[in-house]
Amino acid sequence: MQVWRADVRKRDVRQERVSPDWEQLGGRGLIARILLDEIPPTCDPLGPHNKLIWAPGLLVGQRISSCDRISVGGKSPLTGGVKESNAGGTTGLMLTYLGIKALLVEAAPMDNVWHVLLLDSQGGRFERADDLVGFGVYHTAEKIRQRYGAGIALALIGPGGQRQMLAAGIQNLDKDDEPSRINARGGLGALMGSKRLLAIVIDASSGAPPPLVDADLFKRAQKYYTEKLREQPQTTTYAEYGTASMMMMCDGFGALPTRNFSSGTFEGAQAISGDALRDLLLERGGESQTTHACMPGCAIRCSNSFADASGKKIVSPLEYETIGLLGSNLGIDDLDVIARLNWALNDLGLDTIEIGAALGVAAESGLMEFGNGERALALVEEIRRDTPLGRTLGNGAAFTGSALGVRRVPVVKGQAISAYDPRALKGTGVTYATSPQGADHTAGLTIRAKVNHLDPHGQVEISRNAQINMAGYDTLGACTFSRFGFADAPGAIRDLLIGRYGWDFPDDILQRLGEETLQLERAFNRAAGFSAADDRLPEWMTIEPLPPHNRVFDVDVDDLNGV
Amino acid sequence: MQVWRADVRKRDVRQERVSPDWEQLGGRGLIARILLDEIPPTCDPLGPHNKLIWAPGLLVGQRISSCDRISVGGKSPLTGGVKESNAGGTTGLMLTYLGIKALLVEAAPMDNVWHVLLLDSQGGRFERADDLVGFGVYHTAEKIRQRYGAGIALALIGPGGQRQMLAAGIQNLDKDDEPSRINARGGLGALMGSKRLLAIVIDASSGAPPPLVDADLFKRAQKYYTEKLREQPQTTTYAEYGTASMMMMCDGFGALPTRNFSSGTFEGAQAISGDALRDLLLERGGESQTTHACMPGCAIRCSNSFADASGKKIVSPLEYETIGLLGSNLGIDDLDVIARLNWALNDLGLDTIEIGAALGVAAESGLMEFGNGERALALVEEIRRDTPLGRTLGNGAAFTGSALGVRRVPVVKGQAISAYDPRALKGTGVTYATSPQGADHTAGLTIRAKVNHLDPHGQVEISRNAQINMAGYDTLGACTFSRFGFADAPGAIRDLLIGRYGWDFPDDILQRLGEETLQLERAFNRAAGFSAADDRLPEWMTIEPLPPHNRVFDVDVDDLNGV
Repeated sequence: MQVWRADVRKRDVRQERVSPDWEQLGGRGLIARILLDEIPPTCDPLGPHNKLIWAPGLLVGQRISSCDRISVGGKSPLTGGVKESNAGGTTGLMLTYLGIKALLVEAAPMDNVWHVLLLDSQGGRFERADDLVGFGVYHTAEKIRQRYGAGIALALIGPGGQRQMLAAGIQNLDKDDEPSRINARGGLGALMGSKRLLAIVIDASSGAPPPLVDADLFKRAQKYYTEKLREQPQTTTYAEYGTASMMMMCDGFGALPTRNFSSGTFEGAQAISGDALRDLLLERGGESQTTHACMPGCAIRCSNSFADASGKKIVSPLEYETIGLLGSNLGIDDLDVIARLNWALNDLGLDTIEIGAALGVAAESGLMEFGNGERALALVEEIRRDTPLGRTLGNGAAFTGSALGVRRVPVVKGQAISAYDPRALKGTGVTYATSPQGADHTAGLTIRAKVNHLDPHGQVEISRNAQINMAGYDTLGACTFSRFGFADAPGAIRDLLIGRYGWDFPDDILQRLGEETLQLERAFNRAAGFSAADDRLPEWMTIEPLPPHNRVFDVDVDDLNGV
Repeated sequence: MQVWRADVRKRDVRQERVSPDWEQLGGRGLIARILLDEIPPTCDPLGPHNKLIWAPGLLVGQRISSCDRISVGGKSPLTGGVKESNAGGTTGLMLTYLGIKALLVEAAPMDNVWHVLLLDSQGGRFERADDLVGFGVYHTAEKIRQRYGAGIALALIGPGGQRQMLAAGIQNLDKDDEPSRINARGGLGALMGSKRLLAIVIDASSGAPPPLVDADLFKRAQKYYTEKLREQPQTTTYAEYGTASMMMMCDGFGALPTRNFSSGTFEGAQAISGDALRDLLLERGGESQTTHACMPGCAIRCSNSFADASGKKIVSPLEYETIGLLGSNLGIDDLDVIARLNWALNDLGLDTIEIGAALGVAAESGLMEFGNGERALALVEEIRRDTPLGRTLGNGAAFTGSALGVRRVPVVKGQAISAYDPRALKGTGVTYATSPQGADHTAGLTIRAKVNHLDPHGQVEISRNAQINMAGYDTLGACTFSRFGFADAPGAIRDLLIGRYGWDFPDDILQRLGEETLQLERAFNRAAGFSAADDRLPEWMTIEPLPPHNRVFDVDVDDLNGV
């Protein structure tokens, strides 16, 4: 495995040996290590000193179910702190097939010429791509596939990233070449845009999976884990209903973001629930799919494909976070409208969570009526047309709140809260507040803990453990849903790592990786200027009770400081 | 003297004794002390926990030349840190006549009803003012004066503050009842707007100057200082040319902000210089005045009144910072255009420095051509019409840069750099970087130090001394120009304070007040989440050389940490 460095100023690519400090890390942990080693913490996130880093997780490359995720990171243009955002699809697998442990995109261009970066077994080179700029992601991805061949992996930005909007993500192809697996959070698409890099094209046709030091041990552990994963009830649930199965659970907890986080329950929840979604897809048929894998070999297949009444695909996948933020959070109970919003934002290359929250703020300011889907689509069209209002929305919820004079803005460290209201799910509120990543459910969701989620006590420990585990999984390249299998397959992670690398890993390697990652991330944030004062939920959530339980977020500040 | 607390939720006003900790402070120093004592450092600046504080300086109330300034402060909506912004006019004098050492506006309203707060010798009361909302500052001030009588002092906000725009200031009447003395910086107008407080009306007709403990000593010191002040050459210069006399000096140093800080010299500087301004005003006559006092008793009279070709007043005063930011910084060399921009921004209740910088950023993005004054006026009209673009501009330079995707944004801690480019005036650059207030020339201007301003060495000490002295003067309520007199009148400050209060002040009381104030401010900022990482100029100013001297800002980071 090597480190590849792509310099967008000189437009060359160099290959290096992996330094010993970086060797036993991958994914999120490696990104944190690289940030501390190479990026000045106070640098302008969109300036020449920031770097955009791709790092497959430690387990990536062997088609273990749900374990081929690609982490992308850098100093976040949205939060100003450490950022790692991971996605499924084929990018992680193909980078690993080329022997790339980390790809660092460095420096700043001297001109405004756009390029793609082509990576194959010969190395890397920049090719001009001005003719591909300004189009939507779906069109651009198709054009690039036509130009570079059907077997490629691809990471690209859309108009949002090209315009350096702070809600812009980076999109990857899924196993069926749909550019829908998104490194969505923290504005990494803007960082890519600041490098004038339209896409990374990965041709791994001459590559191969990385070698196994102990193939027998590895295969045994893989089998053990996969069996346990298949036995989990969640595996069946996610296969049948997708992540949308969370909708009624969240509504039941009174934690469903509704009309800009003003209620935890939504009268239209049933209409946009996992049940409703499944029934609709089965009824419509055509290009609908109730279950679909984003990565080759996934046993869970939580993805789906949403078709319109004529059976023609609108968007794939339609996921819970999107339904929560663009549905209930906007008072919209129509899955077709939500699917069209989702497609439009994917095509712009923007984070549906961040924009959903921004639209909620816009609705609160009177720019749209809650429940008016056509108006929401028109506001997204403002982003596409790059109007001043569109630029505001494209910079996310915090920015929109400042622009429109709205105080009820659901963000932590400048990043939008996802589809679990922290006043009714306080452990996840602790995660939002204290994660070095800013508000992010994937940093440590606590909804499955068997506790009273309204009770402020004891939540810190639950969140801390969840954050450590998730930082570990993100370092392995493992999907959050893999934990249902690994939790029942003790030793499997250790054996997979020993089988792959031969190093002597302890039993609690997941927690060790997670703790190390969080320490590195916190060190970077401190050096970037963050302090305990940033580890807080928005003040109004500590004052304004959330119906139906009418609770505020009241986890003690001293407890938050102890995470 | 008393502390008055006005609660905008209960709409009542209470009077309290001054606590011993607050007694020997005033103005900026007292505001810092109150922030630390009463405002949660991490609170939402526009939420219920922030307070808006008026505090006359320690010397206010006796009509000592240039020493009756009013400090206003709170947690800044613009920077998120400590904020004090002081102004001339009659507000400080009249508050002191009522015996008010500090006025704290507290809590948050439960409704959207606007009020004025009427203060007189009977106490304070809220009166409804919905009919006065939505108009420009000049109209509103006139209406309030009609309603409450001609002798009042007044602090009010315009549409900018009412809409909680982050560049909004608070305007005070000058001695001729023009609402043009502005607590301009840091968004305090937005903070006042968040309290739904349109204006404070002060009727001090039954009040009186505060007593003197040793009137003889006081009068002797006042006379000594005033004589020394009158002897200074700067007093004559400012009387004849106003602050615009800085224009050619700054251009000569290569430090004049030109076309969004891309050059330090402007080919049109002569046309907008102090000479040109004076000649034009003398030629036009009518309502023109080349010299004018903002406070009763001022010996310097640096203000002026700018009339159009027919002799009708456009705006009063027209000052250097405004000419720099709205003139050279926008490539505009026409004083009439600059005066019209100035009037429009005063009428909106917005900071001309912040908006000038924001317009420079907008020009860089292509939204206007540099030099196109009519387009600049049209953009200001967008603010008045409250369009999305107008809301963006009204939130200042940093916000506009993010909205428009411009990286060359001249701000520190979110606040715009004033009309001295720090790459050619490095001591002032150190002030911008390290002042707890954010970029602000009044926090420690170094242009009169006899050093090579391009040399990065030795600037830290010059800036440190300037910052301490200015924090001291701001605590006294003394105008920055008073220092020309006090510097030549050793012991005068001590004697004035002893004559007024009787306390035993040491010779270096100015420096002690300044040091204490800065310590308090830094303590608040640390608790609010600021660290050394925030004490930096924008990264691009450390990379991009400034013509004509082609220097970057290269004061060592370790030196900055030592301020």
